[in-house]
Amino acid sequence: MSETVNVAVDAMGGDNAPGEIVLGALEALKERENIKVHLLGIKEALDRELSGKEYPGDRLECVECTEVIDTAEPPVMAIRTRKDSSIVVGLKLVHDGVCDAFVSAGSTGAVLVGGQFIVGRIKGVERPPLAPAFPTTTGMSILLDCGANVDARPSHLVQFAQMGSIYMEHVVGIKNPRVGILNIGAEEEKGNALVKETFPLLKSCTGINFIGSVEARDIPEGAAEVIVCEAFAGNIALKMYEGVGKTMLKEIKGALTSSLAGKIGGLLIKPTLKKTLKKFDVSEYGGAPLLGLNGLVVKTHGSSTRKEIKNSILQCITFKEQEISKRIKESLEKV
Amino acid sequence: MSETVNVAVDAMGGDNAPGEIVLGALEALKERENIKVHLLGIKEALDRELSGKEYPGDRLECVECTEVIDTAEPPVMAIRTRKDSSIVVGLKLVHDGVCDAFVSAGSTGAVLVGGQFIVGRIKGVERPPLAPAFPTTTGMSILLDCGANVDARPSHLVQFAQMGSIYMEHVVGIKNPRVGILNIGAEEEKGNALVKETFPLLKSCTGINFIGSVEARDIPEGAAEVIVCEAFAGNIALKMYEGVGKTMLKEIKGALTSSLAGKIGGLLIKPTLKKTLKKFDVSEYGGAPLLGLNGLVVKTHGSSTRKEIKNSILQCITFKEQEISKRIKESLEKV
Repeated sequence: MSETVNVAVDAMGGDNAPGEIVLGALEALKERENIKVHLLGIKEALDRELSGKEYPGDRLECVECTEVIDTAEPPVMAIRTRKDSSIVVGLKLVHDGVCDAFVSAGSTGAVLVGGQFIVGRIKGVERPPLAPAFPTTTGMSILLDCGANVDARPSHLVQFAQMGSIYMEHVVGIKNPRVGILNIGAEEEKGNALVKETFPLLKSCTGINFIGSVEARDIPEGAAEVIVCEAFAGNIALKMYEGVGKTMLKEIKGALTSSLAGKIGGLLIKPTLKKTLKKFDVSEYGGAPLLGLNGLVVKTHGSSTRKEIKNSILQCITFKEQEISKRIKESLEKV
Repeated sequence: MSETVNVAVDAMGGDNAPGEIVLGALEALKERENIKVHLLGIKEALDRELSGKEYPGDRLECVECTEVIDTAEPPVMAIRTRKDSSIVVGLKLVHDGVCDAFVSAGSTGAVLVGGQFIVGRIKGVERPPLAPAFPTTTGMSILLDCGANVDARPSHLVQFAQMGSIYMEHVVGIKNPRVGILNIGAEEEKGNALVKETFPLLKSCTGINFIGSVEARDIPEGAAEVIVCEAFAGNIALKMYEGVGKTMLKEIKGALTSSLAGKIGGLLIKPTLKKTLKKFDVSEYGGAPLLGLNGLVVKTHGSSTRKEIKNSILQCITFKEQEISKRIKESLEKV
């Protein structure tokens, strides 16, 4: 049997905490034998959610905390002062080597800041990027950085390309993933100062499959599997992707219930439509890893339900089994 | 009768030129009496497209050019050397006061560079932004700058807010339009250096209705009518909007034809679905104006069909009637 992967799970973070988080953890435990979940939260909340549930007691450990970081709190201050919060305690478990990974649907800022301050960066990593995966018509891609550090430098983007390639190849299983730089035109002379400086560095970087500029409109069709960018632009691209998808689905659903013909037609197309729309469901893909740390930190959507939590926990197994942190370290040392 | 508006139309630009461009111009002439179209293009192409068509000869003037700027040509060089191209000749007609506006589906770079170099900026305008309109569930919004100038400064964004507000109020007819700054979080301390510096300037700017930060995911739902940003981020937001929309529609259409039940259901929902999807059709909104010039320059999509060309030409009438350039000049002088 393979080695047990220890995953710290923040039961208090996100819109659906603690209920959906706990259910997601229990589903993950049921699905795989080689994980142990360290469930972090307020005692009463954990007791209430676990009461009456069946689970393997030897693979679920409750870690009681007395504080919860709110999403509205300034991240640096929250990490510094709320020492007994589920986020700080969870990240410390990774730092101390008790856990291999930490999964949270809570404050993005606190998870990102805490990941860097508490877990710490792999030697050689300048900046750890947040690298969410999202669906495309041909499979999936990751966009990094999507929120960890705004105003990045060219050398950061080169490391994002290296780390993203390792992640896509060894965690997601895409051989020799294509790397693109997010740009506003396909030609090499297009772009802002950062892109123009980064382009030749990516071109000469060995060990990655750089294909050049990628325009935002071609991302949903799978223009590249690893797309690097500065966090401000990346966050906007990702949020726009999610926003348009959500709005269109809502409008289409509204149209289908606005008339009798629409309702009948809607029933007939439901099975095929559902299959199509499932492809665009971000919760299928688990959370976004913060790459380049001495351990895995995964940030899931604030709106995460049990499915996304479960998938995020399972993702931690591959991450550990494939020794991603070791591979990243070796790859950066080569350059 | 109101004064005639003279519109120069580039018959050679875009994927569907010259056929669809000429048809769009003829439709605009049919719809409104108070416009005259100056159709720019290669003689043979214009002769062929106009042959056998009915149109008011006194309101359509053919302006023969011997050159066409290709979208792959470097813009500055193209504008400098191709003196007899449809883009350069058209922009000169605006500069010389023969025409009030120029509409082109051709090279974005050449139109933007040429607009600034040939038509020239209104006194006081630091940078003319490209301001495309796009549909939202509550109406429409404009995003500026979407491609004219990357790496903008805070003072540019403040002017974008002023010019965008005037455009939305007087051309589109939205009273006291809400102005937002594109950002990666709702709080004032969020964002990159540019956003942080611009935020207080927008807050203290009189004559605009600033509502704070707007996240990309809230744009499709109509979070603000005027959204200001630096061109790199704006272009990415806009292209992602278009890309996700296009991809989802394609996938849904594919799903509807993949089974018999889907086909029948598809027929039943067609009328309501069509109405819904029309809302997301960018061609309904005409092209993107380049604001802040001594005359109007409108860039339409490269894929423009007659409808977008017609709507773009008609948009020029309101722009002139509402004296937008004069209003912009007065607004900037006030600050």
